[in-house]
Amino acid sequence: MSELPRLLENVRALVFDVFGTVVDWRSGVAREAAPFLARHANGAADPGAFADAWRKRYQPAMEEVRSGRRPFARLDVLHRENLAGVLPEFGIDPATVPGAELDELNLAWHRLDPWPDAVAGLTRLKSRYIIAPLSNGNIIMMLDMAKRAGLPWDAILGAEVAQAYKTSPQAYLRTADILAMQPAEVCLVAAHNNDLAAAAKCGLRTAFVYRPNESGPGRTPPGPDGEWDVIARDFGELATRLGG
Amino acid sequence: MSELPRLLENVRALVFDVFGTVVDWRSGVAREAAPFLARHANGAADPGAFADAWRKRYQPAMEEVRSGRRPFARLDVLHRENLAGVLPEFGIDPATVPGAELDELNLAWHRLDPWPDAVAGLTRLKSRYIIAPLSNGNIIMMLDMAKRAGLPWDAILGAEVAQAYKTSPQAYLRTADILAMQPAEVCLVAAHNNDLAAAAKCGLRTAFVYRPNESGPGRTPPGPDGEWDVIARDFGELATRLGG
Repeated sequence: MSELPRLLENVRALVFDVFGTVVDWRSGVAREAAPFLARHANGAADPGAFADAWRKRYQPAMEEVRSGRRPFARLDVLHRENLAGVLPEFGIDPATVPGAELDELNLAWHRLDPWPDAVAGLTRLKSRYIIAPLSNGNIIMMLDMAKRAGLPWDAILGAEVAQAYKTSPQAYLRTADILAMQPAEVCLVAAHNNDLAAAAKCGLRTAFVYRPNESGPGRTPPGPDGEWDVIARDFGELATRLGG
Repeated sequence: MSELPRLLENVRALVFDVFGTVVDWRSGVAREAAPFLARHANGAADPGAFADAWRKRYQPAMEEVRSGRRPFARLDVLHRENLAGVLPEFGIDPATVPGAELDELNLAWHRLDPWPDAVAGLTRLKSRYIIAPLSNGNIIMMLDMAKRAGLPWDAILGAEVAQAYKTSPQAYLRTADILAMQPAEVCLVAAHNNDLAAAAKCGLRTAFVYRPNESGPGRTPPGPDGEWDVIARDFGELATRLGG
């Protein structure tokens, strides 16, 4: 268990998917949305379903940017548009809600709790590697989240720095370039096969971490489905495997 | 002393000039260059003078970018070009030195020591503010430096993230925009009047910190010359003044 997998011997930086991999986005957004829904949806809306519906608009919004149909816009902007779009699904007319209240709810994504093993695992890994988010979340979102949760990042990287959303190759390749590293010196840690597959195609190393509770109660997300260099059940095991 | 200056009441982020303000660039570069010069300049070259000569090419190189004559290139690239340019001044033909050795010497700028009060002061300030470099140094340079020295940044901001070198207004304004803050919610901390003046013109708050040893023995740098919101003799006093 403690022998470093051979392909990872040259890795100097670990970059992390964040939503689902480091933090529990669904519970956090539901918690932040609950009082809003109680005020505006007559208690009829389920906060978990609201989090799912808001999140459902995430990939299509980024696809506008990835496809080149829209210039890069940070995720806070996309989330705010998606929030206005999702309210009618829950019987709320966005025009009846003060903009400042929607701006505030949009910050739910800045206040997500880490999975229980995340801070301790990252702290161990930081002693041996550069650690940074490679998230589609923007810089201030990641920064607020880290400061609130105590995530000990060395730097905030990701879509806003690379000016490209995952799973575009530029998101991975520009991150390696910014680190002045070959892609094989960088390992992506993620709970999602599609993210890892895109990173592997760019030459990055890959670590899959199980996050069985990401999708909410009773919905088990897919397990590892690819030739990932490491598979770990949590960040503690990842740190043990990577010698952190 | 412990009452927060009124203009700083809304400040939520402190961004720092790094070369000279947080770290002692001259001693660090001289230390790293000494064995190189001993090998290649027959012991005739003074490492401090070499550091000064290398640094002298810093502003003109950035001016090529600021003026628009050259697209943005990160500081590691400019330093590497400047290194090749400065060697003949010390009787060294760059063509006789292996490229890998110059690449290695170029990393001198990643290995600078902080001023003695920097880590403790930043750690205090971090408990109350977002703290980040707003340096002309690029991300991996700042990251390597922080990791080696224990600088507890919340994020690495600066020229590479903003794609603009100080003292261009974009370097300050884009940094505030990335932080999703008004300029007046951001305070630049620097030992240099010109940097603070450019930030103030963009609406940022300003803190001058004395660094009497920046320029080397016997050369006292200019004191505060402007209406800065705070003037402090070191980061310890800055933290006390700002309530960190």
